[in-house]
Amino acid sequence: MHKPFAEAAKIDEVILSRLMPEDDLFAGLIKIAKDHGMERGVILSAIGSLKNVVFVNVRPHTSIPVKTEDMIEIEEAGPFELLSLEGNFFPSLEGGDPVIHLHAILGTSSGSVTGGHLLKATVFTTAEIVLGSISGSSVFKAKSDVTRRMELLKK
Amino acid sequence: MHKPFAEAAKIDEVILSRLMPEDDLFAGLIKIAKDHGMERGVILSAIGSLKNVVFVNVRPHTSIPVKTEDMIEIEEAGPFELLSLEGNFFPSLEGGDPVIHLHAILGTSSGSVTGGHLLKATVFTTAEIVLGSISGSSVFKAKSDVTRRMELLKK
Amino acid sequence: MHKPFAEAAKIDEVILSRLMPEDDLFAGLIKIAKDHGMERGVILSAIGSLKNVVFVNVRPHTSIPVKTEDMIEIEEAGPFELLSLEGNFFPSLEGGDPVIHLHAILGTSSGSVTGGHLLKATVFTTAEIVLGSISGSSVFKAKSDVTRRMELLKK
Repeated sequence: MHKPFAEAAKIDEVILSRLMPEDDLFAGLIKIAKDHGMERGVILSAIGSLKNVVFVNVRPHTSIPVKTEDMIEIEEAGPFELLSLEGNFFPSLEGGDPVIHLHAILGTSSGSVTGGHLLKATVFTTAEIVLGSISGSSVFKAKSDVTRRMELLKK
Repeated sequence: MHKPFAEAAKIDEVILSRLMPEDDLFAGLIKIAKDHGMERGVILSAIGSLKNVVFVNVRPHTSIPVKTEDMIEIEEAGPFELLSLEGNFFPSLEGGDPVIHLHAILGTSSGSVTGGHLLKATVFTTAEIVLGSISGSSVFKAKSDVTRRMELLKK
Repeated sequence: MHKPFAEAAKIDEVILSRLMPEDDLFAGLIKIAKDHGMERGVILSAIGSLKNVVFVNVRPHTSIPVKTEDMIEIEEAGPFELLSLEGNFFPSLEGGDPVIHLHAILGTSSGSVTGGHLLKATVFTTAEIVLGSISGSSVFKAKSDVTRRMELLKK
């Protein structure tokens, strides 16, 4: 059922937003999407700072399907400069809130950089986010039997 | 006065540019914006290499408002691969040049990665930059009493 | 011959795609470009995971033109979360396949981050990629005598 795809779509509108100190990053993005009736979106740019982040990375030599014990969870109080935030949200085939997929890269005071697949984050000073609203798409998120994760699926 | 916002805007035009060895990254971006009459812009993509970079990161356990001594400045000769450049520019409420906000992520010869809130950088071999020109926006940059930084403000 | 430039162009269409486990990242991107008749493109967003990556970074204190021995090649089995993928592809002045230029940032199980100028990568679980199709551009890739690399050139 899960197959590769490449479909033409459009980004005719962007949502330019600022989140505030203490905002939850995930809840903030979902609220923006709902307020603007945006079903499918992609982060075109994000810059700011985060604290109280939780993210996961995958252990070396893991193979698919990825099991829970293959993922290492890291929790950091920070705060950190938000150096990059990549990701998107799509409707779930099962309904409910859109499925948000975010990867964050964070700068530390030593100059080293940390990050991973983001599970939780709070805005520290600001988050300046440009979301692209995707139109003309029939892509959803659905559980894949191969990877055991929520993956993009073209209906 | 500073509030969260999310406004619909458009990116009807992009500026595709190449900066040259020894170009100042900030001056180069401001020149492109002025030459093209672009008031508000966002970096959609940037790839290349940088040298003589200065960037800052925030100390752990810092709280807002962020004070000067909470920020750690790092200066590195490099050169580095420019792995990611996120950011935007908006007009200042007080006039003058647009306020540019840039976060850079840089690759080092060990394979480790460094970066932060960028203050200064010189192009090493090239910088291939795609800027999105934002139209239909009424967002400015203004000093925030809460964070003591220049933050996005919707008029 | 190689000069700085900044040209106005458009991204009227995006290609939303998913690559599958074991897909070659470079071949996958070239196939999408060809299937959609896209001559010039830029990665607007990419998120997923990669394995068997090869990337290079530049040695400290290197000057241009960059020589082969100035670049350090790193090969890693991974797998890694793909935290950021920046890059573009443009036609070569000499014809043939488009010239793809990619920089990747990868998350490791320790929470540290690695990456560089990407030479080779295989998709681990997924790669969710939004490509912007650039229209109205007359930019090519051509060998530069100054940097000895393939650089953007406006015809």
